[in-house]
Amino acid sequence: GGSAGWVAVGLSACRLLQGVLNLGTSENRLCFDLIEDRLARPDMNCLEPDLFQYPNTQGARSFREEIAKFLTDYAGAAKELNPEHITVMNGCCAVFATLSTVLCDPGDGYLIPAPHYGGINSKMWLYGGLQPVHVPLFSEVTDEETHPFQLTVEKLEAALQQAKKQGIRVRALILINPHNPLGGIYPAQLLKECLEFAHRHELHVIMDEIYMLSVYDDTTFTSVLSLDGLPDPERTHFMWGFSKDFGMSGIRVGVLYTRNHDVLKAVNQLAVFHSCPGPVQHVLSQFLKDRDWLDNVFFPTNKKRLKEAQNLLVDGLADVGIPVLRSSAGLYVWADFRKFLKSQTFEAELELWQRLLEKKLLISPGKAFYCYEPGWFRLVFSDSVDKIYLCIERLEQMLHANDADSVVNNTSSTADTLCNPEKDSSGKTSNTPGDDVSQPKKILVY
Amino acid sequence: GGSAGWVAVGLSACRLLQGVLNLGTSENRLCFDLIEDRLARPDMNCLEPDLFQYPNTQGARSFREEIAKFLTDYAGAAKELNPEHITVMNGCCAVFATLSTVLCDPGDGYLIPAPHYGGINSKMWLYGGLQPVHVPLFSEVTDEETHPFQLTVEKLEAALQQAKKQGIRVRALILINPHNPLGGIYPAQLLKECLEFAHRHELHVIMDEIYMLSVYDDTTFTSVLSLDGLPDPERTHFMWGFSKDFGMSGIRVGVLYTRNHDVLKAVNQLAVFHSCPGPVQHVLSQFLKDRDWLDNVFFPTNKKRLKEAQNLLVDGLADVGIPVLRSSAGLYVWADFRKFLKSQTFEAELELWQRLLEKKLLISPGKAFYCYEPGWFRLVFSDSVDKIYLCIERLEQMLHANDADSVVNNTSSTADTLCNPEKDSSGKTSNTPGDDVSQPKKILVY
Repeated sequence: GGSAGWVAVGLSACRLLQGVLNLGTSENRLCFDLIEDRLARPDMNCLEPDLFQYPNTQGARSFREEIAKFLTDYAGAAKELNPEHITVMNGCCAVFATLSTVLCDPGDGYLIPAPHYGGINSKMWLYGGLQPVHVPLFSEVTDEETHPFQLTVEKLEAALQQAKKQGIRVRALILINPHNPLGGIYPAQLLKECLEFAHRHELHVIMDEIYMLSVYDDTTFTSVLSLDGLPDPERTHFMWGFSKDFGMSGIRVGVLYTRNHDVLKAVNQLAVFHSCPGPVQHVLSQFLKDRDWLDNVFFPTNKKRLKEAQNLLVDGLADVGIPVLRSSAGLYVWADFRKFLKSQTFEAELELWQRLLEKKLLISPGKAFYCYEPGWFRLVFSDSVDKIYLCIERLEQMLHANDADSVVNNTSSTADTLCNPEKDSSGKTSNTPGDDVSQPKKILVY
Repeated sequence: GGSAGWVAVGLSACRLLQGVLNLGTSENRLCFDLIEDRLARPDMNCLEPDLFQYPNTQGARSFREEIAKFLTDYAGAAKELNPEHITVMNGCCAVFATLSTVLCDPGDGYLIPAPHYGGINSKMWLYGGLQPVHVPLFSEVTDEETHPFQLTVEKLEAALQQAKKQGIRVRALILINPHNPLGGIYPAQLLKECLEFAHRHELHVIMDEIYMLSVYDDTTFTSVLSLDGLPDPERTHFMWGFSKDFGMSGIRVGVLYTRNHDVLKAVNQLAVFHSCPGPVQHVLSQFLKDRDWLDNVFFPTNKKRLKEAQNLLVDGLADVGIPVLRSSAGLYVWADFRKFLKSQTFEAELELWQRLLEKKLLISPGKAFYCYEPGWFRLVFSDSVDKIYLCIERLEQMLHANDADSVVNNTSSTADTLCNPEKDSSGKTSNTPGDDVSQPKKILVY
């Protein structure tokens, strides 16, 4: 959940939890009605005694078979995936913990473009003892680039060389795709270039594709599993889970797919600490098996609701003058609050975050994602319409009060020049039927 | 499950899994009918959306409250337990992993009487990097002792001093109570002496009480939670789980109780890697709440069935001439196969184990428990009557064949002198109603 640890410190200090509107935690609360309905069907009720006895630490064979079939189809795998290449764990954090312990030695570094989901930091550190080597990305678009916060292989190379100079042994590259918090998708070509870069430098690649099926526009998502002829299959590791795409973060199930036998063997030694209850594996197998429900009910409805909720939030933010980065996937938008900072510093960002919290609005500041540019916030939209309206209302009140009592260092002219020229003011509302791939009505996006 | 890792290697080498009778894994399969019946009641069906969202990493507050009440009553706590001192994890192996990481530095040692549940070795090593310092126990009873494999504070002291001489920094003492694999219970006085010993040497004490409620005779069990005025409460840590006492090893829930705030805080940082699904926490809360069912159905029936199964196995072993250690708790007996070893070596023990496996009988050799004396095996009895009969049948066949084709180094005279004089040949059968605290009909126990 985003900046949970970081935010928790602030919260307990502030004693402000009561009545706080939480748009900080990346959870999908839009489709629980569908999940609840599906859970009520009789195939879910299985009380086989074996499910209550010690599980296979790699995950039940039958569950891994269903996962392999599911990922083969939904990630568009180049060839049928092998259940023996899968280890099931209690969430993707466990996948990070085991990979960090197995792939590297304490003190080693991993490359990661920043901003990035901040939780990775502690997940790679606590058991594995690894340190991040950031590849800093910025909102300014240079001549060679097409969009803000763009990743390029040159930036990876530069960060790697810099780390080497500092004596850090870099062993891995982590890519989050679809990206958290940016909401973008890596084009197939860039993905391949990154994999080739990693191969040249003998880096393991950890592909975090936990938002793989939370794509809400028509952009083509390229899973690493879909690539034919990976540059370095033995060093390419994929993870996915049920937390985001099924809105079941409380179910604690994540999946590692790797063709590297030695890595899998070592991970499986550790998997005993991260195992999932047998009955949970059974229930999730039933979900994965029901292709009719997935294809005709769950995924189309989820996509439509994500798009509607995203439109609503983006429109509302536009109304209060806050641009967002154009996004295709995930449960959040990356929003530019720079013009509301008293100065372009992280102190001012923290101060703004605290003032928002005082107004009972919790969103995640860029600092929690190790962003190198102050003033960006991640707002989660995958919740009820009421909450999104309330968020906008509180933002409006707060930013209005702010206009009155403080000096605003307005950077909106800069922000405007960054705005995507394709902005659309067609006036469609997010309640129009069938607008699941429409643009927000008052777009103010990069 | 006992020597799972160790045995797995042997098994895959032997390719003998088909048709193997498994009395090696410590699982309670005697009461699943009761669990199934209870699970079918309506209070178990709760589909609150919150259960499917990110859980409190320490465990749901409501679940921890139920655990605190449950342990207060069933462990006979000296004063009411505090839910804030509890962290819920996915099994006791996760409790070992987090404590080993938090309490000590890699390379440090922990004292543990041997034989002991062998899994502790990898659980303390894989993430924590800790090494065991054994306190070797033997079957021979000296003048000062009352029973075989007796632990004394003098033995703890000797092992600690020996480790210090070797330059090992010992930071903790692990006690398993009720004991695995010995099946005994530490008398309150010995427990207190061990805690005082640990206090004198500033050792943390990890009390593994996972078999706390699997006591099947009238021996009084003293939980560390029941002691008033612990010598060193800040260094005393308790663990328990649902795997054994509820026969739900596949549900993956273990509990840490510690009054040490700093330890708990550090463990909770790691607990994110070991969290339990929300719905599982809900279901287990319902079990703990239903005192009528626990007191009048589940625990009395479980105790009766454990005792019956234990009698059956002990009688059968007596029939084939195998003495067992007198035991009060757990799901297994510790049996003396020394007279069937070709020589009193661990090679001969392994050879016997392999021959048993060839006869499709899997039991756990003493070596898997780091026993210092070859020839002891742990046999699990908490399974169907048919399986116990089949076990005895296979043992009889094998040991008979053995008589014919090999030289037996018979140590039964030694074994006989070790036999407990209180042996009972009353002829009661294990099927006699109401004999839940009876002795086996043909006892051959220490």
